[in-house]
Amino acid sequence: MSFDRVWLDAQLCTMVPGRGDPLGIIEDGAVAAKDGRIAWVGRRGGLPGAAAVTTRCDGAWILPGLIDCHTHIVFGGNRAREFEMRLEGASYEEIAKAGGGILSTVGATRAASEDALVQAALPRLDALLAEGVTTIEVKSGYGLDLATEARMLRAARRLGRERAVGVVTSCLAAHAVPPEFAGRRTDFARHVAEAIIPAIAAEGLADAVDAFTDSAIAFTPEETGWAFDAAARAGLPVKLHADQLRDDGGAALAARHGALSADHIEYANAEGIAAMARAGTVGVLLPGAFYFIRETHQPDIAAMRAAGLRLALATDLNPGSSPALSLLLMLNMGCTLFRLTVAEALAGVTRHAAAALGLADRGALAPGLRCDLALFGISRPAELCYWMGRNPCVARVRAGEDCGVAAGA
Amino acid sequence: MSFDRVWLDAQLCTMVPGRGDPLGIIEDGAVAAKDGRIAWVGRRGGLPGAAAVTTRCDGAWILPGLIDCHTHIVFGGNRAREFEMRLEGASYEEIAKAGGGILSTVGATRAASEDALVQAALPRLDALLAEGVTTIEVKSGYGLDLATEARMLRAARRLGRERAVGVVTSCLAAHAVPPEFAGRRTDFARHVAEAIIPAIAAEGLADAVDAFTDSAIAFTPEETGWAFDAAARAGLPVKLHADQLRDDGGAALAARHGALSADHIEYANAEGIAAMARAGTVGVLLPGAFYFIRETHQPDIAAMRAAGLRLALATDLNPGSSPALSLLLMLNMGCTLFRLTVAEALAGVTRHAAAALGLADRGALAPGLRCDLALFGISRPAELCYWMGRNPCVARVRAGEDCGVAAGA
Repeated sequence: MSFDRVWLDAQLCTMVPGRGDPLGIIEDGAVAAKDGRIAWVGRRGGLPGAAAVTTRCDGAWILPGLIDCHTHIVFGGNRAREFEMRLEGASYEEIAKAGGGILSTVGATRAASEDALVQAALPRLDALLAEGVTTIEVKSGYGLDLATEARMLRAARRLGRERAVGVVTSCLAAHAVPPEFAGRRTDFARHVAEAIIPAIAAEGLADAVDAFTDSAIAFTPEETGWAFDAAARAGLPVKLHADQLRDDGGAALAARHGALSADHIEYANAEGIAAMARAGTVGVLLPGAFYFIRETHQPDIAAMRAAGLRLALATDLNPGSSPALSLLLMLNMGCTLFRLTVAEALAGVTRHAAAALGLADRGALAPGLRCDLALFGISRPAELCYWMGRNPCVARVRAGEDCGVAAGA
Repeated sequence: MSFDRVWLDAQLCTMVPGRGDPLGIIEDGAVAAKDGRIAWVGRRGGLPGAAAVTTRCDGAWILPGLIDCHTHIVFGGNRAREFEMRLEGASYEEIAKAGGGILSTVGATRAASEDALVQAALPRLDALLAEGVTTIEVKSGYGLDLATEARMLRAARRLGRERAVGVVTSCLAAHAVPPEFAGRRTDFARHVAEAIIPAIAAEGLADAVDAFTDSAIAFTPEETGWAFDAAARAGLPVKLHADQLRDDGGAALAARHGALSADHIEYANAEGIAAMARAGTVGVLLPGAFYFIRETHQPDIAAMRAAGLRLALATDLNPGSSPALSLLLMLNMGCTLFRLTVAEALAGVTRHAAAALGLADRGALAPGLRCDLALFGISRPAELCYWMGRNPCVARVRAGEDCGVAAGA
């Protein structure tokens, strides 16, 4: 066999579980690529051919390129002033009067051009890529009108052209009620289902439809169902912000609609969790938001394990509840705060993150998958979860090509 | 007046509190340096002279170079395997049998040469410097015998020659009981006071003496007093790991000995806190350790504020309880977990961190102080506390000289 490229002198963390080895580790391994795909993975001694280009990895660990499967990376402004005011004891009302809260981000996002949204998002994206991320999901949801939702998603698509990263988009028009629909939540939910989602889908801007179900501050299960039905009519899969702040039956709702994922799920009950597992819905844990808003109610990891639920981990990068630019920090938080094992955490940013996006072509080192790789200067995979604020990523490969880890790469 | 260098087009966060402005902000400011010291700080329009070199900062914010006043950055090995085992449910005994715990770090440190200790510490140091740190404190405490304690401190001194960073050292021989003194804690405490501290001091390796007072896992107040008396005989100031896991009266003990700082202090009582404030002892908060060991007992910030206690924030960088390589993340954790204000958090890594090290020549932008600067591409200082895992540092200046933020700088 002849390959385009081969990586040698590496330890492989394939994320293809083996007997007694959930990480699928191959010591002194080799990865070979052909036409942007992984053509061969195994012990170096078994490599069945030569390659035009050989890269020696100096003992680095190779993982599948990391996947951040839940971000709101496109937004205008930031909420540092609100953060500061809260710490000084400002009340919710004072912050709202000073223009804070999610509607401040909606205002800043509506006021921003597509170019401005892209330029603001790029440094944030570069921070993620520097850690070995090769695929991100990006949500809309700070427009809450068709023009701005579409502009956010166009900006998201552009991120994938400006940088060597795969971008998967979700239309989250059902995120909050915009000021022009104040007091008319249900009307807005109808507008999302009847006008925004069909138009976004017609323009091919969204790969999925997301919604926020919350009985106090977002949409009811019934209203969410309208958005999901609109998604089904447009042939788009769905995802759900579910049971973050209370148990609203979000997990079961997501399962009923065959959602790719239900995200947050701190308050999801055991029946909902079991339903998710049966439906193949991935549970996306977002420890950055849990930490930042000082939530104390733990997701029921024991029930998730018992149900065999696939768990992903993501940054939830957003200006209000998780201004997190490090997926590696989320590994640490997933382990420290939620007591995930190292194997669970790493699956959460690789193969289970791919599943949360409906992507079957990435998330592991296996023949036939995209050759998206992240190389790390570490002594064992657990180091990726153990350190806080360390970035040991030494190289990033997308579709078989080096794409660097520095800003602008 | 003529200066060696001036920085313009900058916003200054001087950390010299003004009326109603704890950050001492100067908009459109200028900083001028002469002979490695700050010669002038103020509004750009008032700049009273010219400089040989002018640097335009494109609107960046200039802060005093950051100070990490509590680290154990010099150590052998790491504890990622132990972290992994704990998450898999291993008991304390199983981990100890597998060679885990602090004694595993003692073993790895004893086995490492000075060169090996320096080479292991440099990437960790580079991570801190990349965020704008210009001074760090480094403790011994994984040798627990004279030869290794001295080697650790020599390695620490070398870090200050290998990189453009100020290094302040603390002899923490009274950190834990080494295996050869198992069951003879008091004998070891005497050995520390009578043999290790005098020899370390005679060689000029330590700028201070530190100790760990804890009634269950470290030294009693009486034993700690022996180390502190040895420090006094050697003319060295003292610091204390105090009241981290329970109230052992550590805060009061530190105050009684006029300690530069008492560190951790989650369980310090109000009387001890007031005594610290009266003695001028700085309270060093270590939110990374609080987070990593999942401590739930909050330090009594209200009592600290009421007493007028100066508070610092540091990484506590160490392989067992705080593998944290980001001082900016500690700003976020100090605000998020302990509800420090932005002004308190920033004082904690600048002027109060300097005070915790007994350094009067740094920690603020003011004439006569060292010209140690950190430049950040941010819209307001609160952004340094708000983001998680973002590094907006664009330049670092030590003693008036550019020294870069990249690895190896």
